[in-house]
Amino acid sequence: MKLLSFSPVPGEGKRVGVLLNGRVVDLAKAYEVVFEASAPNWFLDLKEFVAGGDGALLLAKETLSRLKGVEGAVSYDPEKIVYYPPIERPEKILLLAVNYKSHGNETSTSPPKEPYLFTKFANALVGHNQPVIYPKASSRVDHEVELAVVIGKRGKYIPRKEAFNYVFGYTIANDVSFRDKQFPPEPPYGMRWVHGKGMDTAMPLGPWIVTRDELDPNSVKLTLRVNGEVRQEGYAEDMIFKVDEVIEYTSNGITLSPGDVISTGTPQGVALATGKYLKPGDVMEAEITGIGVLRNYLVEEK
Amino acid sequence: MKLLSFSPVPGEGKRVGVLLNGRVVDLAKAYEVVFEASAPNWFLDLKEFVAGGDGALLLAKETLSRLKGVEGAVSYDPEKIVYYPPIERPEKILLLAVNYKSHGNETSTSPPKEPYLFTKFANALVGHNQPVIYPKASSRVDHEVELAVVIGKRGKYIPRKEAFNYVFGYTIANDVSFRDKQFPPEPPYGMRWVHGKGMDTAMPLGPWIVTRDELDPNSVKLTLRVNGEVRQEGYAEDMIFKVDEVIEYTSNGITLSPGDVISTGTPQGVALATGKYLKPGDVMEAEITGIGVLRNYLVEEK
Repeated sequence: MKLLSFSPVPGEGKRVGVLLNGRVVDLAKAYEVVFEASAPNWFLDLKEFVAGGDGALLLAKETLSRLKGVEGAVSYDPEKIVYYPPIERPEKILLLAVNYKSHGNETSTSPPKEPYLFTKFANALVGHNQPVIYPKASSRVDHEVELAVVIGKRGKYIPRKEAFNYVFGYTIANDVSFRDKQFPPEPPYGMRWVHGKGMDTAMPLGPWIVTRDELDPNSVKLTLRVNGEVRQEGYAEDMIFKVDEVIEYTSNGITLSPGDVISTGTPQGVALATGKYLKPGDVMEAEITGIGVLRNYLVEEK
Repeated sequence: MKLLSFSPVPGEGKRVGVLLNGRVVDLAKAYEVVFEASAPNWFLDLKEFVAGGDGALLLAKETLSRLKGVEGAVSYDPEKIVYYPPIERPEKILLLAVNYKSHGNETSTSPPKEPYLFTKFANALVGHNQPVIYPKASSRVDHEVELAVVIGKRGKYIPRKEAFNYVFGYTIANDVSFRDKQFPPEPPYGMRWVHGKGMDTAMPLGPWIVTRDELDPNSVKLTLRVNGEVRQEGYAEDMIFKVDEVIEYTSNGITLSPGDVISTGTPQGVALATGKYLKPGDVMEAEITGIGVLRNYLVEEK
């Protein structure tokens, strides 16, 4: 199932949507039509849905299966809606530094000995088709297409072999980076992750979450285009630390919660290596097979 | 004004309290008694109160001033209530690495050239008198008493001279640290801030927020005791980067929001330097003059 957070038109309230046969079904409206009753909170807020676990998924599937014949009245053209980040207020946003050998090689950086995590906050999240700020504070703005894991279940000290039970699904992240802030690293502290990664709107996320039953995270291809030109290309099978290993590592002493986002690193082709930095007006398309395309454009900050 | 989040007894709902003449006044109850009407959302959730700005403060003061004679009915003994972190779901928790020369010296670490920020998430927050987990994942658990700034107003690119307009108030943080995770730093990435600092319950906060009009953040003394023995002692005037400078720096490209917490570093005396690491059962008391004492005890994780 592909789940998203959207408004039918700008300014209208936020809804939970499901992509079905090329249309976005409003899940709460669908429930109301099918069951002639009020929809649960799950169907009005995607973070609640994620926290609702398999029961929420079961009810959503049942609702959609009973919808035949009236889809049109409760669904929208995905090209004409407003997209929000699938999760807008996660407790945690964690990301991995160098997790593809190709990206380590191009930047002459040895991969870390164990997963190296950094963080962003909710000020960085924006949805599909939304503007990304080209900030006054940076002139070295870069893109990083990444497979992001959305946690579905509370857990701590999660063994690798049980890790996928804690995954709700996957989405696309663009780990927008500000290289003039991130570098140079200052020993012994390290890179400046907070401003190098975490400025406003520096984490486009979406367009939707694909539930874990529909995607093998090790077999996807990642691509990033700028104004239609391919800049990054890679395969998740080249990840150094795999999704299950990363969940085991992260949950060591830290409780993961439903809605937490863990982004798993980027393949080669970033501007840090090529010199092709972003500029205002550029359109970024981050694509992952089996998920879709996350498109965002850069606007100069006044 | 000293504002807190509390329950009169365990299990009861959360309330906003004000410390007044040695008692904790339940602000919503006080409003109901004084005005014979329903209290605003501000008086039921301290983060909402902070976002309410000067209007919320004005109304709280007016409510308290009209309370004479009936304080007893709407107030509690501060020794007998349950404390929560004053802000439980901040959008951001940012902390400064080495910001006192004495702490840099004792750990043979040159202070960073500009403020070096790292982060924690809400899983780390606990209130006064609450247990701090001594985690299975670490055997080098350390304390760091710090002055924490609570942001009161949304702002970005805040000039240093206007910085205090964006401060709601101050509270005490204990930046509990896991030195065996934080170190060794791995160049060029740096220290492992996420696990070195951000495990569950690793940021006691409270007991209350002192509004900015009642405290000069440059003149306070910080002390940390373990089982009554003084371990850390220092003065905020020895901070390398001052509160207003830190706000200017942090807001460069990053929008600060009401309820955001910025913790300003710790003075000398940590276990990393002395070898006196914490153990299960230890009681930490972090004290800052003009604010109070934040007390927490360590419990071993099963």
